[in-house]
Amino acid sequence: MDTINVAVVGAMGAVGTEMIRTLEKSRLPVGELVPLDVKENAGKSVDFRGKTYTVKEAARGAFGNVDIALFSAGAGASEVLAPIAVEEGAVVVDNSSQWRMDPRCPLVVPEVNPDDLKDHQGIIANPNCSTIQMLVALAPIHRKYRIRRIVVSTYQAVSGSGLPAIRELTSQTEDKLDGKRPNASVYPHQIAFNALPHIDVFVEEGYTKEEMKMVNETHKILDPAILVSPTAVRIPVFRSHSESVNIETENPFEIEDIRKLLAGAPGVVLQDDPANNVYPMAIEAEGRDEVFVGRIRRDPTAPNSLNMWVVSDNLLKGAALNAVQIAETLHERSLITVRQ
Amino acid sequence: MDTINVAVVGAMGAVGTEMIRTLEKSRLPVGELVPLDVKENAGKSVDFRGKTYTVKEAARGAFGNVDIALFSAGAGASEVLAPIAVEEGAVVVDNSSQWRMDPRCPLVVPEVNPDDLKDHQGIIANPNCSTIQMLVALAPIHRKYRIRRIVVSTYQAVSGSGLPAIRELTSQTEDKLDGKRPNASVYPHQIAFNALPHIDVFVEEGYTKEEMKMVNETHKILDPAILVSPTAVRIPVFRSHSESVNIETENPFEIEDIRKLLAGAPGVVLQDDPANNVYPMAIEAEGRDEVFVGRIRRDPTAPNSLNMWVVSDNLLKGAALNAVQIAETLHERSLITVRQ
Repeated sequence: MDTINVAVVGAMGAVGTEMIRTLEKSRLPVGELVPLDVKENAGKSVDFRGKTYTVKEAARGAFGNVDIALFSAGAGASEVLAPIAVEEGAVVVDNSSQWRMDPRCPLVVPEVNPDDLKDHQGIIANPNCSTIQMLVALAPIHRKYRIRRIVVSTYQAVSGSGLPAIRELTSQTEDKLDGKRPNASVYPHQIAFNALPHIDVFVEEGYTKEEMKMVNETHKILDPAILVSPTAVRIPVFRSHSESVNIETENPFEIEDIRKLLAGAPGVVLQDDPANNVYPMAIEAEGRDEVFVGRIRRDPTAPNSLNMWVVSDNLLKGAALNAVQIAETLHERSLITVRQ
Repeated sequence: MDTINVAVVGAMGAVGTEMIRTLEKSRLPVGELVPLDVKENAGKSVDFRGKTYTVKEAARGAFGNVDIALFSAGAGASEVLAPIAVEEGAVVVDNSSQWRMDPRCPLVVPEVNPDDLKDHQGIIANPNCSTIQMLVALAPIHRKYRIRRIVVSTYQAVSGSGLPAIRELTSQTEDKLDGKRPNASVYPHQIAFNALPHIDVFVEEGYTKEEMKMVNETHKILDPAILVSPTAVRIPVFRSHSESVNIETENPFEIEDIRKLLAGAPGVVLQDDPANNVYPMAIEAEGRDEVFVGRIRRDPTAPNSLNMWVVSDNLLKGAALNAVQIAETLHERSLITVRQ
């Protein structure tokens, strides 16, 4: 059987680490793993399927033997290195925001729009974490009932900002419990025991870039006709984003049918038994692959409306897992040139 | 000058403690403070305006010398004791949910509906914390533009569940940082580093009692015509609730006028300068009296719509302060019988 060589760019980061773990369990026939990172991390080692690999610098010349390169090294690195990786013969799956809205780059959630992969020109973009989990939950509803409008408020984990943010939540929490004044450096304000209505930079009309990603990426992935009104908020959770989602559909539905639809939807787990305190929670989604949906209830304040609660591990389905699933789909559909 | 004697029922609790602190700074001419609590706390002492008072058991006979009794001892205690306090000659301002929807009991936010006090029959209800801060922010907008619908998601602090919940967040956080498995007793699940889409019990059609309070109390306090679609969520914050609020009005508005309205509204502080990372935050609202509003931006997905972020100290404006303000208003409008 042919094998494929997979590079992970940003191999030592929060998402890169999960990419390697996810690849380990994936059905991809990985030949060689090529862990790449910044110069300072070159020389470190990474274990993968029983072998030890040495981290090399992510730079021109590093992709000569690579079939698929999974990038999670930030938009700046992707802007420079992704075209180089393609030039050197790799197909890139990029987790940053750099290529998402580029019309040449498919933006793909495998459960939602896998067919968009077929026209790729070397770079495929992995969507924003908040968008991925929302669309995995909403796509089946949209297909059957046509979603007209989404009002969404997020409860996002710090791991979305990488390892420094995880360390900052830890140290601020310790300081706060010790009665010391916490120090903020990753975020503009203390995140421990706080809620920050501010993720990524402010861009237009008072919305943040994170919020506009949820608007624009929903349009590109699912349907440009869906209206999205987002509020993105960071809370002191290490891992897994939660979302309070209110939707209005064109066509009338029964709540029981929405539950049935979601129970059978790919990548979705229904956790909706409030009488027994069962609903999705960040701490339970951590380390799991699926998108968890619960608290599904009719919203009687608008026609064809409902509220729901959507939770998923932002480092897995929100990042590493979705990227690996894109790689698997590319491989299964023969959309990568595999070297012999 | 006449003085009035004020009892605080639940004087040793999270809200009771704040009631006494707030009374200390209030313009009420307090003669005697009468701190009451459960039998186990009787005999403890409380300092107030330079004098030390002994906590007595909250029971029949305790209200003989009391003009106003501020209750924060839970719905069960209020059900039994509030009518006894009235019988013994006190006017009750009750912070529990017990009397809120009783047509005989005014439900009052002094900035919003102070005139409802005039028909009281002895018991005045203090609204739910999440409702108070939302309505202080929305009432000025409703008066001018008529709010048609509210979609609100809350980010609520643990202090809303009292001192045991504050201790539980602390101990769970310590356990988690020490690598131990946190133990949950106040909440059905771990609250440290988690988000719980579950506050109070589940009551109807998949909504919680906390959520239905926001619906029903908005109708009673502000306008029964306003449609409210709530999602109430507990997050690991000690103090101050945050709310992501989406509204639609009957009449068109300019966003600048909304900002102007709120900047001049009683009890509101506008914190809306995202370019300088200025927006309301739980940790900054802690210990402050006002309702903080920011991230005000047009929602282009529906006519006459906007999103905003509303934060206030749930123990102060959300509970103790609002109760004391009701007492002040009662006194100023001569709605209590003051003993000579």
